[in-house]
Amino acid sequence: MRKISILGATGSIGTQTLDVIRKLDGELRLIGVTANTSVQKVIEIIKEFEPSYVGMMDHNSAEEIKKYCEEYNKNIEVFHGIEGLNKIASLNEIDIVVTSVVGMIGLEPTMKAIEAKKDIALANKETLVVAGEIVMKAAKENNVRILPVDSEHSAIFQSLRGNDISTLGKIILTASGGPFRGKTTEELKNIKVEDALKHPKWNMGRKISIDSATLMNKGLEVIEAHWLFGCDYDNIQVTVHPQSIVHSMVEYTDGSIIAQLGAADMRLPIQYALNYEKREKVIADTIDFYEISQLTFEKPDLDTFKALDLSFRAGRIGGLMPTILNGANEAAVELFLNEKIKFLQIAELIEKCMKVFSDEVEKELNLENIIDLDRRVKEYIAEKAVL
Amino acid sequence: MRKISILGATGSIGTQTLDVIRKLDGELRLIGVTANTSVQKVIEIIKEFEPSYVGMMDHNSAEEIKKYCEEYNKNIEVFHGIEGLNKIASLNEIDIVVTSVVGMIGLEPTMKAIEAKKDIALANKETLVVAGEIVMKAAKENNVRILPVDSEHSAIFQSLRGNDISTLGKIILTASGGPFRGKTTEELKNIKVEDALKHPKWNMGRKISIDSATLMNKGLEVIEAHWLFGCDYDNIQVTVHPQSIVHSMVEYTDGSIIAQLGAADMRLPIQYALNYEKREKVIADTIDFYEISQLTFEKPDLDTFKALDLSFRAGRIGGLMPTILNGANEAAVELFLNEKIKFLQIAELIEKCMKVFSDEVEKELNLENIIDLDRRVKEYIAEKAVL
Repeated sequence: MRKISILGATGSIGTQTLDVIRKLDGELRLIGVTANTSVQKVIEIIKEFEPSYVGMMDHNSAEEIKKYCEEYNKNIEVFHGIEGLNKIASLNEIDIVVTSVVGMIGLEPTMKAIEAKKDIALANKETLVVAGEIVMKAAKENNVRILPVDSEHSAIFQSLRGNDISTLGKIILTASGGPFRGKTTEELKNIKVEDALKHPKWNMGRKISIDSATLMNKGLEVIEAHWLFGCDYDNIQVTVHPQSIVHSMVEYTDGSIIAQLGAADMRLPIQYALNYEKREKVIADTIDFYEISQLTFEKPDLDTFKALDLSFRAGRIGGLMPTILNGANEAAVELFLNEKIKFLQIAELIEKCMKVFSDEVEKELNLENIIDLDRRVKEYIAEKAVL
Repeated sequence: MRKISILGATGSIGTQTLDVIRKLDGELRLIGVTANTSVQKVIEIIKEFEPSYVGMMDHNSAEEIKKYCEEYNKNIEVFHGIEGLNKIASLNEIDIVVTSVVGMIGLEPTMKAIEAKKDIALANKETLVVAGEIVMKAAKENNVRILPVDSEHSAIFQSLRGNDISTLGKIILTASGGPFRGKTTEELKNIKVEDALKHPKWNMGRKISIDSATLMNKGLEVIEAHWLFGCDYDNIQVTVHPQSIVHSMVEYTDGSIIAQLGAADMRLPIQYALNYEKREKVIADTIDFYEISQLTFEKPDLDTFKALDLSFRAGRIGGLMPTILNGANEAAVELFLNEKIKFLQIAELIEKCMKVFSDEVEKELNLENIIDLDRRVKEYIAEKAVL
């Protein structure tokens, strides 16, 4: 039995991870969970899965959980704040941590988990985007596996199985194209928040849904793939595939392509990571090729969806540039979700920050500098960039 | 450097194997070749590749090669007949044998090669169709690898790489559908030989081109896949995929599908088998998803293309029934190529033989009985079944 902690247990990936634990009955045991403020959801988790540790980012929420545990005689240790997150990521009792928190906040606990020699089921892509070099180095030193939970990276990981990584020629990263595929810049000017949240294929959280609409999500995945698989940016090809059935592909040095296909259901890559290297039990829909009829592929429109182009540029520049890209995006998406800026301004603000902060790019790449620059980029956007 | 013999060096697969040796300059060394009567082609092979052994099925052709070797001072041992084939399949000097002869004739030398502990690059599908149980058992006992050269089986083999065979849930065997995909039985009544030879995607020999037109080729591949991968017939799904880019797929017990894709070029699976487990050097066209645009899938029409249905039936019955299926098909295709019977009669004759010889199915499965029954089925068709 594999023992796990989930960071961000009440979010979209967290909830689906709980369902995987439920369905792989007895294979996995939930030891620790964290959440921000969702007390009621955490209580439900306690009732069903009986974890031994709970961390709440919010201090008051932690107190409420403590009260609940006392009242119902639950023998659970409760923590709060980022220290709680770090604690739950590095518990002695666990084998693997699911990092399903959203945004930069995932970086520190992921590092703590690696230092504690826990395998990582990585669903927090910002971690690799801003600190790929540091994280992969630490994982190697601590002999820890980084098991991707993104459907695309899980597909690449599965397609590489049994092959020597030195024979990886090219990654073909598929993208659904998001809800605005085929639209012109003109048509995107007055996009509403609710339209941007309607993803055609995947059921996801709010931030990642907007990232999918701008194609920034794919851009972050490009940088993530670069670090996870040691692949040059020139050898990562983003291909729009609206049916979201081919989750990504690998072209080998002999020209042969291996692809992974499956239902558009996040529980499948979660299961693959948590169960690795075993494969067993179908817990979601399967694909029937007598019903699919067609799979289509097209080149992404980098002129309209500038965020993808900016991501390749930031990745190639390297250093702290991906931190600027990611921080600006997080702040801009927040503004868009609060209806403070328009859809196209997300990419404009990112591009602006990449210029304004360009002198900072070659500073030493360490957690302090990353966290400091991320904060300043976000402040810059909050102060200056609002309409 | 891997040392190889090619059985059937002047045919379609043999010629493409020679090109792989040429392109993987220095990785492979040609030691032995066989052919039927193509003296001039064999002389060209001798000039370019300088093998040490040549076998000609035809005695006179062997004499001609001997004369050539004497005249030009070539230090080559020349054999003839099936003994020559067996000899070249089991040379001390070689590591691997490419069995690219067409039809039942490949069975005996393949067994000799296995007994001599040579790896097999298997391009002769009849071997597994009629004697899969015997061949796979011998391969296991002799610790010999059967490396598939068919593009479909190479795709399955590549898709299984790194995975436990016990997690194989289903094989999705793709089929181009052949030149008559979408046609009705009525439209197939008066098909001409030259139309049946025009395959839309693959450049192949005459017999296999007709088998592709009837879908018997796919039927033989179903039986081949059953033996190669130990997969139940219920878990082999034939899917028509006219673009011939996805060469086949594997669905695992967790519902995840792994597919192998590539150009429709037989040199790729040949290279994979001969170079296994290495992957290096692109020797043929690669796939560009910005240009492909779509891949389509459909259910095969088993009512029109009866040969595929008959193959599943023969495979499920087992024993000597696949020998009857294959022998009847070989004889019927020959008659069709010589314009003695019509296109639809190929499947009719196969079905008839499966009834007429049904009492023989449960005889002991051994080489003698296979070869004897194959001969009698062919004689039956030659004598009785002509229009």
